[in-house]
Amino acid sequence: MDIPVRIVLVEPTHPGNIGAVARAMKTMGMSDLALVNPQRFPDAEATARASGADDVLAAAAVCDSLIEAIGDCGFVVGTSARRRSLPCPILDPRRCAQLVVERLSSTRVAVVMGTESSGLTNEQMGHCRYLVNIPANEKYSSLNLAMATQILCYELRMAALGDAEGCSVEVREDPPATASELDGLHAHLERVLDGTGFFNPDHPTTLRLRLRRLFHRAELDRTEVNILRGAFAALDPDRRRRS
Amino acid sequence: MDIPVRIVLVEPTHPGNIGAVARAMKTMGMSDLALVNPQRFPDAEATARASGADDVLAAAAVCDSLIEAIGDCGFVVGTSARRRSLPCPILDPRRCAQLVVERLSSTRVAVVMGTESSGLTNEQMGHCRYLVNIPANEKYSSLNLAMATQILCYELRMAALGDAEGCSVEVREDPPATASELDGLHAHLERVLDGTGFFNPDHPTTLRLRLRRLFHRAELDRTEVNILRGAFAALDPDRRRRS
Repeated sequence: MDIPVRIVLVEPTHPGNIGAVARAMKTMGMSDLALVNPQRFPDAEATARASGADDVLAAAAVCDSLIEAIGDCGFVVGTSARRRSLPCPILDPRRCAQLVVERLSSTRVAVVMGTESSGLTNEQMGHCRYLVNIPANEKYSSLNLAMATQILCYELRMAALGDAEGCSVEVREDPPATASELDGLHAHLERVLDGTGFFNPDHPTTLRLRLRRLFHRAELDRTEVNILRGAFAALDPDRRRRS
Repeated sequence: MDIPVRIVLVEPTHPGNIGAVARAMKTMGMSDLALVNPQRFPDAEATARASGADDVLAAAAVCDSLIEAIGDCGFVVGTSARRRSLPCPILDPRRCAQLVVERLSSTRVAVVMGTESSGLTNEQMGHCRYLVNIPANEKYSSLNLAMATQILCYELRMAALGDAEGCSVEVREDPPATASELDGLHAHLERVLDGTGFFNPDHPTTLRLRLRRLFHRAELDRTEVNILRGAFAALDPDRRRRS
């Protein structure tokens, strides 16, 4: 899936960062990169750090101004290292990504990253509908440009993939064991253990129920029930005595 | 806010990555780092890349084995670059972070990152309750170790900050069994079964991992581990032969 969001780097200082941003974008299925007055570009260090995402670098637009880079976009979000006095609404990356993805069908969208040392100026933020802030450790918020881009692009991808699948915990291939298959399993284990003195004859029920509960929690499938029954059979003292 | 989740790097090859991981952790308020047989550590390149997170590096535990690094943890998640044939439950980072944060009040948690080139082995995955997969671009999933860690730590922080909607969790009285306790349980069952012909000598590993996974899913507490070990001992053919 290609996610058509433009990432704009404003006056990036280190060419290595440009390459690492290209790589971060491509891992998340993004390829629209614009550079506003990069200090050095193209550059061997950018290409090296892009590591397989050099197609993103090669297609990057190099612009003279921020407005040139975002001119065709109907929705622009800027990044902000911390909350500023500027009364621009601030979003976390998740909410930002939701808003961006909602708008993709109707307009082009840009996410604007400020220069490494100082971020966006107030003037540059003035082009943004929202600011997005990554809620980093207050005592050490030293996220570099590529790491911040990686997180934002990840959230854009998650939003584009749809949250729907988020809560499906496990993909299971075999059908879950039925209640009667489980009952057979439990009875089998109890029978195998019965002659061993494992169950306290005074309180046999507590331990039995605890074993059952434990296996319920495993949410066994049919194959696993068969595996366990195979193991119980292999360990069955009666069977061993006979053999 | 400090998020007490241990990040475990298994046999990291590049010291620069160790430093970048330390930095990624610290930006998200995490500091518990363990290294299993790092190729070079300590190392000047690690320190340089940590850039202000050198306290995380200095406090890192260096271990000889994965089980040493996760032995005291009651919930272990491994990373997986892509879906493997091993049907271990796979989560996306968001769901994973929710599950991790839910467990922080009752046990230590580890997130295990495989070696750069090849990820976790099946054996190493056998210690994990879940695998977490970052849903990257299928055509270019080249997320490096530090970038992947950055995303996972970001999601852990988002979940810890209270974003998680959370599905209802079971209230458990006993503390979860630790990875060492579980490893002891698995080894015990395997030992008891070994002489019975249960394991196919041609493919012993598949079945062993499947049994481990099944017990992982039960999220056993310490008492249950003791109950099961009591049952295994009662069924141990060697012990029965002697008595």
